[in-house]
Amino acid sequence: MDTKKLRVNGKRLKSTLEEMAKIGATSGGGVQRLTLSDEDQKARDLFLNWLRELDLEIVVDEMGNIFGKRKGKNNRLSPVLSGSHIDSQPRGGRFDGILGVMGALEALRTIHENSIETQRPLMIVDWTNEEGTRFSPAMLGSGVWAGKLDRDWAYDRTDIHGKKFGEELIRIGYRGERKAKRWAVQAYYELHIEQGPILEKEGKNIGIPKGIVGIYWYDIYIEGKANQVGPTPMEGRNDALCTAAEMILKVNELPAKMGGNMVATVGKIQNYPNSRNIIPDRVDFTLDIRSWDDNLAIRGWKDLQKDFGRIAKRRGCPVRIEKTWSLKPTAFDEKLVKRVGKTSQELGYSIRPMLSGAGHDAAYLSQVAPTAMIFVPSIGGRSHVEVENTRREDCEAGANVLLHCLLQSAFEV
Amino acid sequence: MDTKKLRVNGKRLKSTLEEMAKIGATSGGGVQRLTLSDEDQKARDLFLNWLRELDLEIVVDEMGNIFGKRKGKNNRLSPVLSGSHIDSQPRGGRFDGILGVMGALEALRTIHENSIETQRPLMIVDWTNEEGTRFSPAMLGSGVWAGKLDRDWAYDRTDIHGKKFGEELIRIGYRGERKAKRWAVQAYYELHIEQGPILEKEGKNIGIPKGIVGIYWYDIYIEGKANQVGPTPMEGRNDALCTAAEMILKVNELPAKMGGNMVATVGKIQNYPNSRNIIPDRVDFTLDIRSWDDNLAIRGWKDLQKDFGRIAKRRGCPVRIEKTWSLKPTAFDEKLVKRVGKTSQELGYSIRPMLSGAGHDAAYLSQVAPTAMIFVPSIGGRSHVEVENTRREDCEAGANVLLHCLLQSAFEV
Repeated sequence: MDTKKLRVNGKRLKSTLEEMAKIGATSGGGVQRLTLSDEDQKARDLFLNWLRELDLEIVVDEMGNIFGKRKGKNNRLSPVLSGSHIDSQPRGGRFDGILGVMGALEALRTIHENSIETQRPLMIVDWTNEEGTRFSPAMLGSGVWAGKLDRDWAYDRTDIHGKKFGEELIRIGYRGERKAKRWAVQAYYELHIEQGPILEKEGKNIGIPKGIVGIYWYDIYIEGKANQVGPTPMEGRNDALCTAAEMILKVNELPAKMGGNMVATVGKIQNYPNSRNIIPDRVDFTLDIRSWDDNLAIRGWKDLQKDFGRIAKRRGCPVRIEKTWSLKPTAFDEKLVKRVGKTSQELGYSIRPMLSGAGHDAAYLSQVAPTAMIFVPSIGGRSHVEVENTRREDCEAGANVLLHCLLQSAFEV
Repeated sequence: MDTKKLRVNGKRLKSTLEEMAKIGATSGGGVQRLTLSDEDQKARDLFLNWLRELDLEIVVDEMGNIFGKRKGKNNRLSPVLSGSHIDSQPRGGRFDGILGVMGALEALRTIHENSIETQRPLMIVDWTNEEGTRFSPAMLGSGVWAGKLDRDWAYDRTDIHGKKFGEELIRIGYRGERKAKRWAVQAYYELHIEQGPILEKEGKNIGIPKGIVGIYWYDIYIEGKANQVGPTPMEGRNDALCTAAEMILKVNELPAKMGGNMVATVGKIQNYPNSRNIIPDRVDFTLDIRSWDDNLAIRGWKDLQKDFGRIAKRRGCPVRIEKTWSLKPTAFDEKLVKRVGKTSQELGYSIRPMLSGAGHDAAYLSQVAPTAMIFVPSIGGRSHVEVENTRREDCEAGANVLLHCLLQSAFEV
């Protein structure tokens, strides 16, 4: 048959997403499926059932990454891989991650029911712990698989209750025997929601990221001096919270100061002793800086450090800074990126070249294999929240683009 | 005997304070004796034992306020009352509150062992829940006793675990039968640490507050819009934490802007969802404004509200404000205040007229009886912290002033 005419089943994709969204459903219409939780386990079980219906060869590796392989004509050729992650943010949305896995499933179902025989094997994947919310850092599963993170170090990551990643992996029965070690991949495609407002605002169907911005994570610790608020004059106070407030505003002003092309955010703050009538003597906060231009990010951070130092000195509140994680900007494979754009247009979808502001498993994948991503619009640009949403037609469009990119790569010899 | 020559036993006062500080002792050298906790119960039991040694008539009222009465020659005359509170801040100090109770106990011990017969009865008191940290608001026991707060409303106050004040009072066995209802008091004296830096800085022995500043408590709620930090441009963000940071700095600048004679503090802040890579969509913080000049406090707050409104509008983050508690400035009884000063000087102590920046049970007492306070220096001005400290000689000096003020009032007919 003429594979050009193949289209995914948008209805089926929708009902598959809805079925999956029942696992860990929250009262606000989102999902909470934290890595290696009971909900993650149930979702994995359901995913495996669906893989079995397609007669895929299933492998779970020692990081809990789940692979399903559909044979091609020549199984000595490297496979074409696609997927994303099943885990979610706390009180997160119904599309982040899971759309990329269910989209790849829908593409495989379409290929399966049309009995298409590809040259290369096709593989679907669920990467473990992309979000990094329960176990930090993010993208542990793909990071170990790609050889960028150490397996035993990953096993030792703990959640806030002190439970270890490695132990929880065993508890839910998803520590496989196969080594989590990269192999040759012909192409990796990841379908994902944009998580930003651009596609919706500009009325475009498909976002074509040329890469993922660089990400820098820091933890900031400020030390003040506690005292009863009433009898302590304003002069001579060492208020850790006021110190933090000044720094937070500097962070917020940084991107404009550096001329744009950057975002900088404080998402988390902890104040101590956090009592109404005691001057705060300790504040910890997190800092997230992202830019496609790595030099700009580095210069911005240097500038910010100077500001932090000045503020800390003036307020008599020493500051300590820890760099907790970073990811250099990732450029995707030019040929694949072009293919995603061309395929989209051939299918009649409007496209928008862009950047990915969020980290994805594709960042690690692109270090070991030709990689590209396919973005679909996020309603209101909202993500990591329960109201996160993407229209049915947009999910379908993204899956169609994925289907045809997979087919093109899978017929390459 | 000539009561003029009476002096308290500084050594005994010190060892009494040390004995009491063992109950709820913290690793950092402070105490944690939260209202109606097991530690509060133990401290009350010990206090009662000490009262019994002095053959006092003991009454526990329905608010758990503990009174010990020493008869005078004419027991139809209204009594002279002194005390403070046994409860402490979380990880608080060894002097705040308890010094006033143990100081009064030491004065009574001195009077007892010298077999002084006063005209009027003398009474010692421990007021329940002065701190207001476990159950808000502060000064519940004296407030109900003075007729300014409702008993059943007080019983319904809950701690963060949902436990009710009334139930916890029964649990520790300190809900008495006597009504918590004010009676005629000839004079109320409260010995307390300054909780500020002035006495130490100026090398004075005794602080003579002419009253307690007015206190206004507000809760501020800011609503933002959550989003993944990476793909969300800086423009168009509704960041609740940045909004709060601007407001916190306005609070910090307010006293200087209003020309001094005021303190304004944000002590507590809660950020949501408080995740490293999500733009905060809700921040709650507390505001505490204090001034002796009530008009200034009111004008300052109006000014601040305008600033809050402007900031909220500009950042697209609606703000909601709740007034949670307030206390008008309290002027102490002029005659008693003069007596505290004169008595201190006669005893050879240097004095410093001042204001109390912190609320005390004396605020409610002064609304129903002639009231004065006696302040002793806080080392480094530190209070509500584990390192809170006052020199032995200063504790002794304060107790001597209290002793002689009590005697003067108790011989009045």
